[in-house]
Amino acid sequence: MIVILKGDVTEAQIQHVLDRVAELGLRPHLSRGTYRTIVGLIGDEDKISQGALRSIPGVQDVLRVLPPYKLASLEAHPQPSVVQVGRVRIGGGQMALIAGPCAVEGPERMRSIARAVREAGANILRGGAFKPRTSPYAFQGLGEDGLKILREAGDEAGLPVVTEVLDPRHVELVARYADMLQLGARNMQNFVLLTEVGKTHKPVLLKRGMAATVNDLLMSAEYILSQGNSQVVLCERGVKGFDSITRNLFDVAAVAAVKTLSHLPIIVDPSHATGRPDLIPPCALAGLAAGADGVHVEVHDCPEQAASDGQQALLPAQFAELSEQLRRLGELFGRKFSSPTGD
Amino acid sequence: MIVILKGDVTEAQIQHVLDRVAELGLRPHLSRGTYRTIVGLIGDEDKISQGALRSIPGVQDVLRVLPPYKLASLEAHPQPSVVQVGRVRIGGGQMALIAGPCAVEGPERMRSIARAVREAGANILRGGAFKPRTSPYAFQGLGEDGLKILREAGDEAGLPVVTEVLDPRHVELVARYADMLQLGARNMQNFVLLTEVGKTHKPVLLKRGMAATVNDLLMSAEYILSQGNSQVVLCERGVKGFDSITRNLFDVAAVAAVKTLSHLPIIVDPSHATGRPDLIPPCALAGLAAGADGVHVEVHDCPEQAASDGQQALLPAQFAELSEQLRRLGELFGRKFSSPTGD
Amino acid sequence: MIVILKGDVTEAQIQHVLDRVAELGLRPHLSRGTYRTIVGLIGDEDKISQGALRSIPGVQDVLRVLPPYKLASLEAHPQPSVVQVGRVRIGGGQMALIAGPCAVEGPERMRSIARAVREAGANILRGGAFKPRTSPYAFQGLGEDGLKILREAGDEAGLPVVTEVLDPRHVELVARYADMLQLGARNMQNFVLLTEVGKTHKPVLLKRGMAATVNDLLMSAEYILSQGNSQVVLCERGVKGFDSITRNLFDVAAVAAVKTLSHLPIIVDPSHATGRPDLIPPCALAGLAAGADGVHVEVHDCPEQAASDGQQALLPAQFAELSEQLRRLGELFGRKFSSPTGD
Amino acid sequence: MIVILKGDVTEAQIQHVLDRVAELGLRPHLSRGTYRTIVGLIGDEDKISQGALRSIPGVQDVLRVLPPYKLASLEAHPQPSVVQVGRVRIGGGQMALIAGPCAVEGPERMRSIARAVREAGANILRGGAFKPRTSPYAFQGLGEDGLKILREAGDEAGLPVVTEVLDPRHVELVARYADMLQLGARNMQNFVLLTEVGKTHKPVLLKRGMAATVNDLLMSAEYILSQGNSQVVLCERGVKGFDSITRNLFDVAAVAAVKTLSHLPIIVDPSHATGRPDLIPPCALAGLAAGADGVHVEVHDCPEQAASDGQQALLPAQFAELSEQLRRLGELFGRKFSSPTGD
Repeated sequence: MIVILKGDVTEAQIQHVLDRVAELGLRPHLSRGTYRTIVGLIGDEDKISQGALRSIPGVQDVLRVLPPYKLASLEAHPQPSVVQVGRVRIGGGQMALIAGPCAVEGPERMRSIARAVREAGANILRGGAFKPRTSPYAFQGLGEDGLKILREAGDEAGLPVVTEVLDPRHVELVARYADMLQLGARNMQNFVLLTEVGKTHKPVLLKRGMAATVNDLLMSAEYILSQGNSQVVLCERGVKGFDSITRNLFDVAAVAAVKTLSHLPIIVDPSHATGRPDLIPPCALAGLAAGADGVHVEVHDCPEQAASDGQQALLPAQFAELSEQLRRLGELFGRKFSSPTGD
Repeated sequence: MIVILKGDVTEAQIQHVLDRVAELGLRPHLSRGTYRTIVGLIGDEDKISQGALRSIPGVQDVLRVLPPYKLASLEAHPQPSVVQVGRVRIGGGQMALIAGPCAVEGPERMRSIARAVREAGANILRGGAFKPRTSPYAFQGLGEDGLKILREAGDEAGLPVVTEVLDPRHVELVARYADMLQLGARNMQNFVLLTEVGKTHKPVLLKRGMAATVNDLLMSAEYILSQGNSQVVLCERGVKGFDSITRNLFDVAAVAAVKTLSHLPIIVDPSHATGRPDLIPPCALAGLAAGADGVHVEVHDCPEQAASDGQQALLPAQFAELSEQLRRLGELFGRKFSSPTGD
Repeated sequence: MIVILKGDVTEAQIQHVLDRVAELGLRPHLSRGTYRTIVGLIGDEDKISQGALRSIPGVQDVLRVLPPYKLASLEAHPQPSVVQVGRVRIGGGQMALIAGPCAVEGPERMRSIARAVREAGANILRGGAFKPRTSPYAFQGLGEDGLKILREAGDEAGLPVVTEVLDPRHVELVARYADMLQLGARNMQNFVLLTEVGKTHKPVLLKRGMAATVNDLLMSAEYILSQGNSQVVLCERGVKGFDSITRNLFDVAAVAAVKTLSHLPIIVDPSHATGRPDLIPPCALAGLAAGADGVHVEVHDCPEQAASDGQQALLPAQFAELSEQLRRLGELFGRKFSSPTGD
Repeated sequence: MIVILKGDVTEAQIQHVLDRVAELGLRPHLSRGTYRTIVGLIGDEDKISQGALRSIPGVQDVLRVLPPYKLASLEAHPQPSVVQVGRVRIGGGQMALIAGPCAVEGPERMRSIARAVREAGANILRGGAFKPRTSPYAFQGLGEDGLKILREAGDEAGLPVVTEVLDPRHVELVARYADMLQLGARNMQNFVLLTEVGKTHKPVLLKRGMAATVNDLLMSAEYILSQGNSQVVLCERGVKGFDSITRNLFDVAAVAAVKTLSHLPIIVDPSHATGRPDLIPPCALAGLAAGADGVHVEVHDCPEQAASDGQQALLPAQFAELSEQLRRLGELFGRKFSSPTGD
């Protein structure tokens, strides 16, 4: 860390800073400039709270120079990680195409959508059984029944399945049915849930929170990794923005930025990022062009009857067209959608 | 709800919309303008998903006209609610002054801070036993030991205590020790936790999420209220902003906006909102001037030794000075800090 | 427009609203719902100020249903516009590749960069002669000398040139030298400059402001169009975001959103959007994949000696590689970079 | 400045950095840590472009330690500045209360509003003659006629007047009629206009831009100051936010933050910040409580007939009530509204 002292810092204050740093087991390195004096800290940064250092009189600012995440960093693991979901491989040139309805609504609809997305090229099936809804009066999902329906539809279509887990008490239950656990944007900093999911050996789809920086996202991944679960796939799904023309602000540069910092695969979710079916295809393509390791799209065979978020779903035929465009785009960049059968 | 149709909507599409609405048990009211046709929906809006309506071909937009929260709304309860924590009353002209360290660090420090804030005029003691930390390697709090220390310090100082709960499995445990349960900003849309806390009869301090609108905040309050717990105090603590000069962006207008929509008390937390001790006093005063029902401030007797967030704490002497200013400001507006002894 | 009345509106207030609307020469259409009464306004919306309507007692909200821009809208001009700069055509499947240094620094450097970008596939040369700098002490550009240098370098390389104009008094001067006038992000709502530029017959490159919605951007284009100049190319260059990992937040979905609303071409500027050379190629590709009609990239042969913004420039060799990737990506989508010689 | 080198920087790269720094006339001070090497630059920072340094291979980041504004900084002028408008003094315990309509609409209305706000305690009269409107079709103001009307109304009421200038070619004209020149939020980084206004000796009211940081605001003030005009009053009027419940996000902490950095007075404008008359009084009071040197409020005697922005104006009676509350609040803090007669 680097401690920048105030312009009017006194010699006594400088000495106090040096003493504190030494107390903490670090070696300070003082450097006096024309206008500012700075102290470099040599040793293990993790021993120190930045906030406590900032509280010392005479200190203007404290800067980290190392990323606070270790396991997630590219320095720890310079090669791209590959996460396996069923037989689908995500990362290192292989891509995920996750598709399905926002919520599992019933066995027939689920089966028909599963078949449709499989035919169109999806390699992982999604569907929510536990739904995080902003209103307590809205449809909250079918719970375990939904998990069963999803599992059966996936098995029938030959696709591994991913579904969201909301409650740390349900992690084991959801893990019994699903091949991949999804952590939603609103739970990205639910550290209890991150820890619980980290204790399983299931692959995790970790969605970026609406107010989370890329650094925050990687810190949340670190929570999972630090529990011994290295199977984390990140997902950019839009952050909070000021323009209501889209539901969220799709931060496509974050995909590329993650690639410069971490070995973890990252996919994009243009359904939640835009909330508009007409913007899903262009944003899915943009995500892939920026380097994403896959795409997550909501597909529904009758959005106007969907129990939740119908307006951000594609129809199966629209999805099939997009899937074909994504396939060709991936080819251009030497990446391909992993086969659900592992071929 | 109001459904606005596209400019090039066909008669067949209009009919389809009318049919759908009728299927849902509502009465449509068609109105053809020069440029746009709109459909007003008469009946119970809650039966309908806005998203599903938006997915119908020919529909341009769907607008709610009623707030989606009912119990939290001023229409449901036109008088300000008063929430009681121990003997402290919050709302309707009585104010909270919540103070204490970010984290409970040990019995002696906790006791001495408790005495100091009580003497300075605080009426509720705070301190974190379970800490939500962005890094898995950071101090996570003392857990149940911390709860005991906080309880004892509060009892000794004659102050009710508030502390954060992170895990739905800990709600009962925390409720055994605390007079008020805090839900942190990162958990504002942790619907599982909101529901669990709603099942207790403990007062809840609900902090606004960093990307949450005022409407989102009231919807989260609605989760708690809908479980039968009406003791909710809201807290504005800054939203995500683009200027790193403050840690968050203190949205003081939200305090006044909440007062036009809801009967629930709302306080401000300038410590988290600004992350800078020099900005805490002006922002605390601003919050009160805007109509807040109290203030939440972190106080530490040695911020440079604090285990977390030392840089956003006031020293006891600074807090005492602020407390006196707040008291006089409250007087000007005919509001006063409730006595911890209920006098 | 639609006027939504408050839940507790009185009959006298309703009558007052109806009278006001009639006074303004519009026909009101009243619709009473279970919970809310709404008034549709039939006639020319432009006669009315939304703000004034909102001020009428009993009015809760006022909603526009028509876009406030007319000439820029797709309804006015359903086919994509094609803007011609020199012999380069932008829009309708033809793309721009604008490249050059942030600022014109001298004749030799400008000539060598011009040659390099032309060889690498650029079809328009850029370079700033008047620079908008946040500091009054920073290099402000070479002024008219810079314009001459740019013009000569463009002529020598066989490329039309674009450069920024900052001052309404300089519009004529800049138009004498440049083939296209650039309006920077900070001037997107400089209505005086928009009007002045609208009076010329020069193509305009209009950059989106950092706090501008897509609607704001189209309204600014409307200013230019309403003066009789229809040669407007929009440019997405990032909006203000909360994550300092990139300089701005590249809103790639805005490109696709503009295509649903307007016939005007839109290009992307990943240099300003990200401020990081390593993120320029992925974001340029993402922009094209989302449907952009071209790319604007800063190129410098020695960024570490650049007089301004060196850190967001590509080296000529990096640009050549990107140009080739963009060419192949365009091909996939059936779009191509227009030839600077018009072939 | 401090240059932080990358973790994998080579010795040759370090030497290259040291050479570059020396070439620029600065003295480098190398400091090798366990994980990172940093270079402190000793000498005149203004000689160097941060961007150019960031472009040097091996450089990870470049940090400024001194504020880039000099004349506006507290270090340059440790006492609060007092700006005089007519006989009204702003700063150092004396406050401005600026009131009037958004736009000058006609002589009678202007006179009657001027009288009303003067009686209610305003000490400066405002009114727009040149209006920056997002739509080219909206009312653009009365121009010079508006200036005359404003001047006469101010003279009759005994109030100095402030009005916005949009065009550098109009600065002289506007300065003939007005006692203070307003630079609007959309022009905060219109450096041409800042420079032109800096050449006059008129007091300037500089509004913060919607995407401007506090640092940006102070840099724009520096433009004016660097031209020799030291009469600058800053104005916080809300930044872009994600919650549409208010028109902008009133950043009250910025008022307090400016006080820690600059000697310039700063006032608040709750009309533009919130866009809602019911939130103007609480936000005006909050601004004063946070340390503002005054308040700017739109007042109209019939907002529903206003030619622009009627919905964010107070009625004269509402303004009178607010004025009285502000007076009493100011008293509590030992500040008072300056008399327009200089008494």
